[in-house]
Amino acid sequence: MVKVITSLTNPLIKHLVLLSEKSKLRKESGTLMVEGQREILLALKGDFKLKTLIFNPAILSFNQLHQLYGQVVLETELIEVNPQVYNKLAYREGTEGVIGVFFAKTQGLEALVFTNKNPLILVAEATEKPGNIGALLRTADAAGLDACIIANPNTDLYNPNIIRASIGCIFTMQTAYGTTADIITWLRQQHMNIICATIADDSVSCYDVDYTKPTAIVVGTESTGLSDEWIQAADQNVMIPMRGKIDSMNVSVSASILIYEAVRQRIQGGI
Amino acid sequence: MVKVITSLTNPLIKHLVLLSEKSKLRKESGTLMVEGQREILLALKGDFKLKTLIFNPAILSFNQLHQLYGQVVLETELIEVNPQVYNKLAYREGTEGVIGVFFAKTQGLEALVFTNKNPLILVAEATEKPGNIGALLRTADAAGLDACIIANPNTDLYNPNIIRASIGCIFTMQTAYGTTADIITWLRQQHMNIICATIADDSVSCYDVDYTKPTAIVVGTESTGLSDEWIQAADQNVMIPMRGKIDSMNVSVSASILIYEAVRQRIQGGI
Repeated sequence: MVKVITSLTNPLIKHLVLLSEKSKLRKESGTLMVEGQREILLALKGDFKLKTLIFNPAILSFNQLHQLYGQVVLETELIEVNPQVYNKLAYREGTEGVIGVFFAKTQGLEALVFTNKNPLILVAEATEKPGNIGALLRTADAAGLDACIIANPNTDLYNPNIIRASIGCIFTMQTAYGTTADIITWLRQQHMNIICATIADDSVSCYDVDYTKPTAIVVGTESTGLSDEWIQAADQNVMIPMRGKIDSMNVSVSASILIYEAVRQRIQGGI
Repeated sequence: MVKVITSLTNPLIKHLVLLSEKSKLRKESGTLMVEGQREILLALKGDFKLKTLIFNPAILSFNQLHQLYGQVVLETELIEVNPQVYNKLAYREGTEGVIGVFFAKTQGLEALVFTNKNPLILVAEATEKPGNIGALLRTADAAGLDACIIANPNTDLYNPNIIRASIGCIFTMQTAYGTTADIITWLRQQHMNIICATIADDSVSCYDVDYTKPTAIVVGTESTGLSDEWIQAADQNVMIPMRGKIDSMNVSVSASILIYEAVRQRIQGGI
């Protein structure tokens, strides 16, 4: 049965507006909002469980929803809203016509599963901007990394800006977060080489390091770099050769250069 | 002598507001606006000629200006403005206290000069977002490229958003723009290998190509990729190995992976 909501003051609509805005509410409720036809498909593909579908029939009919998503539409709470309510909820001013509420996945380190015996993962510490986390997730997906871990995050990873900037990679890439201390302990338990991107006294060129063993590539923020905890914990500190006048790189660019050097070595080593 | 302007309706102030907004006016007047103490320093370092300095003495005094920039301050038209006028001109709400009007450099292909006999350059076709052009320029600087050329640009390169996103690399990196046809002709005259990033029938892995000869790495837009003109003109089409589920990369990320593969080969070849 489809429930119809036409009032902006309906308690569920108010709740959903807060859900898109408040990291705390996403954590407490264990749910997140996903806007857009393609993004919802990717979340379903990534085995996220759907709780509610909200749709604006002026853009997308029930039949079209069914065509897009199949059986799951019949097993989900469906809410039809008018354009006014839809636009209140939507980021993109109603061009897509559908918003999904999904159950969050557990993002603790203990939930990570590696099918690859020789995993390659990215750890990003305290990355400030949702756009940068999104770009990191895109590269992590393209490079086929086994996981992407955020250390000491400033937000949960289900922030709408991260979902959008990742163009859905947040749903297909295995992710986790934790404190820097917990992640270092966990990486050691997993016997992973910790390679930190930093300009330290003992840093070597990123091209003089072997990434073909189980490896975690660790990057910090653009403004302050990695914390000392990481630099001390590193099996190897590395730097990207800089040959310019200003020598400043976007964090997603520097992470990508390191990740793809690892991919190159693994391809050439037949791994 | 310092001229003082306190009126928002002063014709020069009106002109400067338009100069920051209108690409056409920048082209016609051959001038551009640069905001921020560090950015002005970089423009001077990059041999851009200063026309006018506008300063807000509530933030930055004449003496401080002189300390920052030296002799050039005494040879330049100086305009003192009040906070209201300054905030009208400034992007960053007046935290820096100084705006420079500089003469543009010629950005035709004929103006490019290579001191390096074995140049490595980047060509970006029709990149849409100023933020992406800025990020490309940052990587171009860090990698020590010999030039960065924009084909069929949608804006001039002195757009304030490009200046900001490039964190000043627009002033230290040699840049030019032109039509795709003109750039291809010019690259052939220079005997440069044209390596195009595209998924074409004849594309090979970007790791199976030699970048140690004079080389132009060419990238297109995220949405539509490179035009057929480039793909036909390429000495080699290359693709970055994709091993994910979504396989989408930010243009500045994919350009950086190619640029740094070239840097790696050149370092390892002692070039």
